[in-house]
Amino acid sequence: MKRPTIADVARRAGVSKGAVSYALNGQPGVSEATRRRILAIAEEIGFSPSSAARALSGATAKAVGLALCRPARILGIEPFFMELISGVEAELSARSYALTLQVVADQAAEIAVYRRWWAERRVDGVFVCDLRLDDARVPVLEELRLPAVVIGGPGHTGTLASVWSDDAAALVETVEYLVALGHRRIARVGGLPELLHTRLRTEAFERVCRDLGLAGAVTVPSDYSGEEGARATRRLLSSPNRPSAVIYDNDVMAIAGLSVAQEMGLAVPGDLSIVAWDDSPLCQLVHPPLTALGRDIPAYGAQAARHLLAAIAGEPVGTLQDETAHLTPRGSTAPPRGSTAPPRER
Amino acid sequence: MKRPTIADVARRAGVSKGAVSYALNGQPGVSEATRRRILAIAEEIGFSPSSAARALSGATAKAVGLALCRPARILGIEPFFMELISGVEAELSARSYALTLQVVADQAAEIAVYRRWWAERRVDGVFVCDLRLDDARVPVLEELRLPAVVIGGPGHTGTLASVWSDDAAALVETVEYLVALGHRRIARVGGLPELLHTRLRTEAFERVCRDLGLAGAVTVPSDYSGEEGARATRRLLSSPNRPSAVIYDNDVMAIAGLSVAQEMGLAVPGDLSIVAWDDSPLCQLVHPPLTALGRDIPAYGAQAARHLLAAIAGEPVGTLQDETAHLTPRGSTAPPRGSTAPPRER
Repeated sequence: MKRPTIADVARRAGVSKGAVSYALNGQPGVSEATRRRILAIAEEIGFSPSSAARALSGATAKAVGLALCRPARILGIEPFFMELISGVEAELSARSYALTLQVVADQAAEIAVYRRWWAERRVDGVFVCDLRLDDARVPVLEELRLPAVVIGGPGHTGTLASVWSDDAAALVETVEYLVALGHRRIARVGGLPELLHTRLRTEAFERVCRDLGLAGAVTVPSDYSGEEGARATRRLLSSPNRPSAVIYDNDVMAIAGLSVAQEMGLAVPGDLSIVAWDDSPLCQLVHPPLTALGRDIPAYGAQAARHLLAAIAGEPVGTLQDETAHLTPRGSTAPPRGSTAPPRER
Repeated sequence: MKRPTIADVARRAGVSKGAVSYALNGQPGVSEATRRRILAIAEEIGFSPSSAARALSGATAKAVGLALCRPARILGIEPFFMELISGVEAELSARSYALTLQVVADQAAEIAVYRRWWAERRVDGVFVCDLRLDDARVPVLEELRLPAVVIGGPGHTGTLASVWSDDAAALVETVEYLVALGHRRIARVGGLPELLHTRLRTEAFERVCRDLGLAGAVTVPSDYSGEEGARATRRLLSSPNRPSAVIYDNDVMAIAGLSVAQEMGLAVPGDLSIVAWDDSPLCQLVHPPLTALGRDIPAYGAQAARHLLAAIAGEPVGTLQDETAHLTPRGSTAPPRGSTAPPRER
């Protein structure tokens, strides 16, 4: 008996081969009813999704790609990507998949890399990081039909699969904790403003501060570097109504902020409370150790890898929510000097 | 006219095809005189080293491999590898080569990865990091005839190509600087003792301290983590004859050491001078900023990449010395409290 092909499925379903591939990859272009009918026929004649994926893509590369669009000096200093990669790696190598890494200068270069990788069948799928609003990569990947998992969201991922974590909820928890300690003037040093997760955090920060009646809650944007973290902190601490607590969008900037406070003669946490996002071993190296928002980044990478391998195998994949970051209080947060009872008013 | 083959070279030289490949790859198995004769014949009949490399390896993968044998938590926190990778990447992507990355648990796993990569023609060559004394990977790579560049040395690289930096000279410069400031009790928190460059640093440290008549110069080994850096520092600072200066084998441990000094009520640099190896942006984030030994790690990675691509093209490659790390004095070093004139005796 001949092995069933995609043409057999198309003929039985009375649709084009393209429609079958859309249906099997969970992509738009077919109605939900047609998609179900096609999947039922594929199952009936024994056309498995994984053989479907192979049929559509030719020989598999047994490799997945990760293009990173960040300057080298920032990639080097931020533990996030190496932790993510180590989690991705653990999952891939168990299935004999290789990870192909490329550092790119901008999104246009990243898109060119995707086109080349896919044209040359160098990868079977890709991870997409640093999602932006109206991200130009999403429609290109949809059009290429290159299996992809966006590490970010929620939303703005088109029909691509994704894994995401609820940054807004984590930020609200943090602000509520600082308010419970007695803080009323809270500022934030944010990441790159064009990134979706920065936008979501900024919106959540403004919303919760408004809800809690905190005046002058401000977000200073940055590029995640220690230099900009230090500059933003100096600006905030030099203002006439300086904040008593600052939340930083990464660990490196939080450490830079701690140094600036020390340099300006402010005690942490007495005069200034500091919270770092992305808890990492760095946060525990400094004195005082930093209160931080953390979650298991290698596990996040492993989940993204499992999701991508499923997409490559032609399994229906969608949006997957990972754990929300949780706050670990350490020595860098305390009630502000002069505060008596936590005024938890709303 | 037919394109010359490796068999043509072998016939003319009166040797086996294997001997030609040894000669072209600079590997043992042929005498130096025979190697020169083979290279001359290859040049004469227009058998280019790059077509030689292709002939020996079959189709090229247009990818090179990097297997990293470090726990994820340490990979994530040390800027060194990401900086190295970004330099490697810049060189590779300009030549449309991909970088295949794999995190491995131990050397046996790393060797298995090399065998698989080479058998499946997934890579055209590999980088070898974290060279050890009597490194088991060297003879395997020699035997596989997999083009490789060792990032480390000098020595202990067998017939493999390598790029290295003179760690011993950098360490001597550092100790001489601390002695010039007036320090007589200098300690060091070293990296993994089984790594060759740790051994070379330790030997240089012991030698220069002996030469300068410094008593009690001790190296405490570590795994490069902040935890062990902190523990080693606590041990050193609790000893009856505590050091007035400590040199750390990475930036992360130096930052941990700074925190321990602060936690124990010692002023840096008044009570304790601190020098970090591998200057990175982290060193400038803390207060005071750390005096550090640094060099251009992305450039080191780029040089290693050019060297590996040359090896893959069949060009004769050997040992290449990169710049020596230079000391950048910042706020963490000063004359020890109570010292008057720098007693530069020998």
